[in-house]
Amino acid sequence: MRIIGLDPGLRSTGWGVVDVKDSRLTHVANGRCASRGDDLSMRLASLFRQLDSVLSCHRPDGAAVESVFVNKDPASTLKLGQARSLCLLVPALRGIVVHEYAPNTVKKSVVGVGHADKVQVDLMVRMLLPGVELENPDAADALAVAICHAHTSRGSARLGIVSEEQAGFSG
Amino acid sequence: MRIIGLDPGLRSTGWGVVDVKDSRLTHVANGRCASRGDDLSMRLASLFRQLDSVLSCHRPDGAAVESVFVNKDPASTLKLGQARSLCLLVPALRGIVVHEYAPNTVKKSVVGVGHADKVQVDLMVRMLLPGVELENPDAADALAVAICHAHTSRGSARLGIVSEEQAGFSG
Repeated sequence: MRIIGLDPGLRSTGWGVVDVKDSRLTHVANGRCASRGDDLSMRLASLFRQLDSVLSCHRPDGAAVESVFVNKDPASTLKLGQARSLCLLVPALRGIVVHEYAPNTVKKSVVGVGHADKVQVDLMVRMLLPGVELENPDAADALAVAICHAHTSRGSARLGIVSEEQAGFSG
Repeated sequence: MRIIGLDPGLRSTGWGVVDVKDSRLTHVANGRCASRGDDLSMRLASLFRQLDSVLSCHRPDGAAVESVFVNKDPASTLKLGQARSLCLLVPALRGIVVHEYAPNTVKKSVVGVGHADKVQVDLMVRMLLPGVELENPDAADALAVAICHAHTSRGSARLGIVSEEQAGFSG
């Protein structure tokens, strides 16, 4: 099974692709889509085309994205929501089911604790995907979501990590 | 010039198309796209396909959408933002510029006062587009945004209405 993880942002959306076979995770590719354009509609169109191109190139079977941290600032929540809707839309248009995970669930799945910081996540992504070259921090977060989905969807016990989803935590 | 107005909503997005020639407005069509699907990604894909089909059918030159009322409830703002991003994305993918108007600007342009209620907007839409049959309230709001853009972009004085945009109000 091939999984794409997505880390949404209006200016920069990270992506990371892993292959899962039995209990083995293999890194395929990672990167980021930087939106271009003078206004929001052009930025969204730019992000749509780039994401669609990534999916066309790597042809994942499943997709995973972090659920939105509902910010106290509605304007920030709105911006993130607009980028995130594309991370849900683009795979769905290709018939790919998109799974959502709370940020704490992703950290718990990858690092083992729900309140890990970005450095710890980055380190564990490198450990779980030996030899990976991370294009940027957004891509590391995206790979973490993909790894979380791999752990959750199959073989978590064999990978030695129990995700919050399976353990029944709310994340 | 042909204009499409869009009234975003995750469950139901209204749309209305008008033709503008000199100072004359003509109704072309109106309706709504009701999203279907078990989860958010499927609903967004359903909405995307329907909106794209409306644009493919009516081939507008310009598009207009209400700017988001940033709700005090971030979760509601997020939902609206996710539907609205598609109203910006779908025309932009076809190279159509999307204009945004504050809700008060739309009401002022169509009714003459910024705090008009939905009944007044509905009535004025019917007066400005004689013989129009409104499919539903969402479509009336969408036609109001299209009329607002028509008034703003050309011939406002001849139509006897000065929009807030032109009068320098903030909306």
